[in-house]
Parts: sequence; C-alpha cells; structure tokens
Amino acid sequence: MENKDNYNDQVEGRNSVIELLESGKDINKIFIERGEKHGSIYKIIAMAKERKVIIVEKDKRQMEEMAQNKNYQGVIALVPPFEYCEIEDILDKAKEKNEDPFVLILDGIEDPHNLGSIIRTAETAGVHGIIIPKRRATGVNSTVAKVSSGAVEHMLVARVTNITDAIEKLKKAGLWICGTDIKTDKYYYEQDLTGPIGIVIGNEGSGMSNKVTKNCDFLVKIPMMGKVTSLNASVSTGIVIYEALKQRLQKNKMKGE
Amino acid sequence: MENKDNYNDQVEGRNSVIELLESGKDINKIFIERGEKHGSIYKIIAMAKERKVIIVEKDKRQMEEMAQNKNYQGVIALVPPFEYCEIEDILDKAKEKNEDPFVLILDGIEDPHNLGSIIRTAETAGVHGIIIPKRRATGVNSTVAKVSSGAVEHMLVARVTNITDAIEKLKKAGLWICGTDIKTDKYYYEQDLTGPIGIVIGNEGSGMSNKVTKNCDFLVKIPMMGKVTSLNASVSTGIVIYEALKQRLQKNKMKGE
Repeated sequence: MENKDNYNDQVEGRNSVIELLESGKDINKIFIERGEKHGSIYKIIAMAKERKVIIVEKDKRQMEEMAQNKNYQGVIALVPPFEYCEIEDILDKAKEKNEDPFVLILDGIEDPHNLGSIIRTAETAGVHGIIIPKRRATGVNSTVAKVSSGAVEHMLVARVTNITDAIEKLKKAGLWICGTDIKTDKYYYEQDLTGPIGIVIGNEGSGMSNKVTKNCDFLVKIPMMGKVTSLNASVSTGIVIYEALKQRLQKNKMKGE
Repeated sequence: MENKDNYNDQVEGRNSVIELLESGKDINKIFIERGEKHGSIYKIIAMAKERKVIIVEKDKRQMEEMAQNKNYQGVIALVPPFEYCEIEDILDKAKEKNEDPFVLILDGIEDPHNLGSIIRTAETAGVHGIIIPKRRATGVNSTVAKVSSGAVEHMLVARVTNITDAIEKLKKAGLWICGTDIKTDKYYYEQDLTGPIGIVIGNEGSGMSNKVTKNCDFLVKIPMMGKVTSLNASVSTGIVIYEALKQRLQKNKMKGE
C-alpha cells in the first residue's frame, strides 16, 4: 500500500462504536480489550454478532499500540477508508443535475474539524464536489466524518497530487477559478459568482500558495472590520460559498426556473 | 459568590500557561504540582517570578481535584474572570462610533468552541456587542477565549437573566429584531438588515425558544440545498451577520460615506 491513508480508518470509544453499529455502515472488524467487563462492551458484542461483524480480543498492550486516542475505552472498530472520486465525477454530477459546476478547492486545510465543517457547509450549499491535495492536508477520516454530521456520505471529494493541475483541468472544462486572498481590493460580494465556478480556500495559517494564487482568474476578500485579522477557515468558506449560492438562486429565479 | 462563574477562570497545561505569561494578561496565581521537574515547568517558574506572579506548590491529589482537564500537565493558572458588560454599554458603543446598533443575541449556545468562533466572526464583522443568557448556555471561559483568537478582548458581551427582556430593551432602543428559524419562507438575503438591528441565533440543537421566536420582528432562514438539514452554529452565524455587514457597507457606499 502506498501510504497510511489506504489502510482502514478507525472508530474508537464505546459510544462512537455503538453509533457506528447503529448506522448500518460497513465495519471490517471490531477489536475489544481482553478483560473489559463494561456493560456497553456487552452491548457492542451483541450488536456486532447480530450484524455478523468479526470480533477480535486483544491484550491491553496491543490495544494501546493500535489506538489513535487515549480514550479508546477498550474498543476499536476498523471501517473501510473513505472512497475518493475523480475530478471528472464532480463535473459529471453537475451535468446530471443540469447545473453549472460549483466546485470547492481546498488548498491545504490541515484541521480535520475544519474539513468536516466545510464538507457539511458545502453539502448544504449544493456544492457538487470538493478537491483536496494529497500532501500537507488532512484527508477524510473518522473525525472529519463525525464533524460533517454525515455530509461526507453525500459529498464527492477528489484527492489530487497537484492542486495547480486540478485547477488547469477545471479551467479547460470551462470553470472560472475564484481565489480568496486578503491582498486584493475586491469584496467577495462584488464578484459575479454565477456560472461554472471553482472557489479556492487556502490553508488555515498561510492561505493559498503563490502558485495557486497566480492561477486564479480573480481574487476576492472578506471585509474585516475589527482588530482580529482573520476568520476561522470553515466560517470564511461558508460566507463565500453561500454568497455564490445566493447569486445562483437569484439568477435562476430571474430566469423563472 | 452567586455561582461558579464568579470564581477565577483556569488556564491549564504547560504551553497554555506559557502563552498566558507571554501575553502579559493578568494572572492571579499559578499552581504547580509538587515534584514536577519538566524543563518547561522551570521556564514557567522563571517567567512567573519575573512577572511577580504568586506560585503555589500543591500535591498531585490536590492538583487533580482542581484540574478541569486531564492533561493539565502539572500546572494550573488562575486568571480573573471575563468582565461582562451591560446592554447599555453595547448601545453606547454604537453611538460612540456613530453607527446604527448591530447586536448579536445568542439564545443558548452551549458549545464553548461555537461561542469562541462566533465571537471571532462577530468581531471581524463589526458587531457592537453580543448578548448571551446566564442559564443553559456557555459563558466566556478560557476555551472560548482561545478559540476566539483573542477577539474576546475586543468584544462587549452582556450576560442576561432573560433573553426576552433583553430583546424588549433593544426594541425600545429602536432596534429591529431578526430571528433565524428554519420554519419561515424568507431567505436571509431577502431581508433588509440595515439600520439598528439585533440578530438572534438559537441553540445548536433546538434553535430559538418559542418565546424568543414570537418576540422577533421578522424571521429569516438559510437555504439548505443538500441532504444534511442544518449548519454548524458558528457557520450559520457567519453567513447571516456577513450578509448584514455587506448590506450596511453597500448602503454607506451609496450615501457616499
């Protein structure tokens, strides 16, 4: 396997594993710490047997080695990794829905909480798909899935080696690329965000890379009226993509759709 | 003392206490676990001595009792509690700035991360002050302060016994009260949000209380295009207050301000 992300993803802790069992989602295996006698462990064992999920007992030492969180509470479930899509799948989805492509490009979001919240917001805003880089960014893991309130199940996410190449591909498909950058004069609401569009959001700390910035067709910023000079990445993404959604809904209304 | 929130607030963990010492903010006392020999503990002791902050050694058992987090790492700092303001202070701030009052009312935000993020966004959007309830909601604690990226230092927050009474007071001062509720037909961007205004955001799970909903002058909602039916509270707050800011900036521009 190429890298760690190709392995199974883990869900840890008694409540999280019970929720997982209740959701009906695929589970590869459940590991339980030898000697764990907690009532909810028996519940997990019963639910797993009913769903015919394999249960494996392991020693405390082995469990501690495997656990990603300190509070794994004697139980770890292995689930299949998130299935990423191709950029073409995102464009196809827009086509199927007979809508102008509405794509979000995340140039290096590192915090899984931010990615989860962004996926949730993108899903409610009707974004067709999200593009993330393979390196120096978080992938879609169980924390992301949890924070997204289940939105990962309904969102296409493509994971690419090179964001600049992905942008080129989108441009060739007719999309306009809108970057977000504090060093521009134009406010996000002064820009036409209708039509086929890709909106780029940069890293939490350093923003978009220079190369990506240069490849954008236009740049917009969010007004900052206070002493704090930046917004949380998931909040700023919400503000910009909802402006785009608003413009798109208003345009459709005028067309009488 | 009336309730626990009148006590000091605690900052725990080696890095957090070092950051606190570097910030120059008031510190009442620093507790250090007897026998802690970590290098950064010596750094904390040295910095505290330089700033003439009292250091108290305590046994592991006493420290564990006092700690709010498991990972307090042998060090707990006591800081003065956040100073809440009165509603009048918020209205005065708008007056001083010669602006129409722009107030945010949070009807029961429970998660300190959400409150912190909301305070950060409100500060960047130029909100004059935030009103929160005393009960069934988080107050401004050290987690909120941290998540707000320092915005709490620049934001007026009033903590009231009764949100409905607070709304009455704002109405008497000439503010229009805009509630956010999924059960309305009007989108947030179809509503005039200029002029003196108070925007109400409800609880993460249950939204605004019935009584508060009835007291709003108008209600707006955010379009939901996907399968997930709600947004994170801090993201939805960002979307609505930034629409208000946009309308206010555009109105000022037309007036040639």
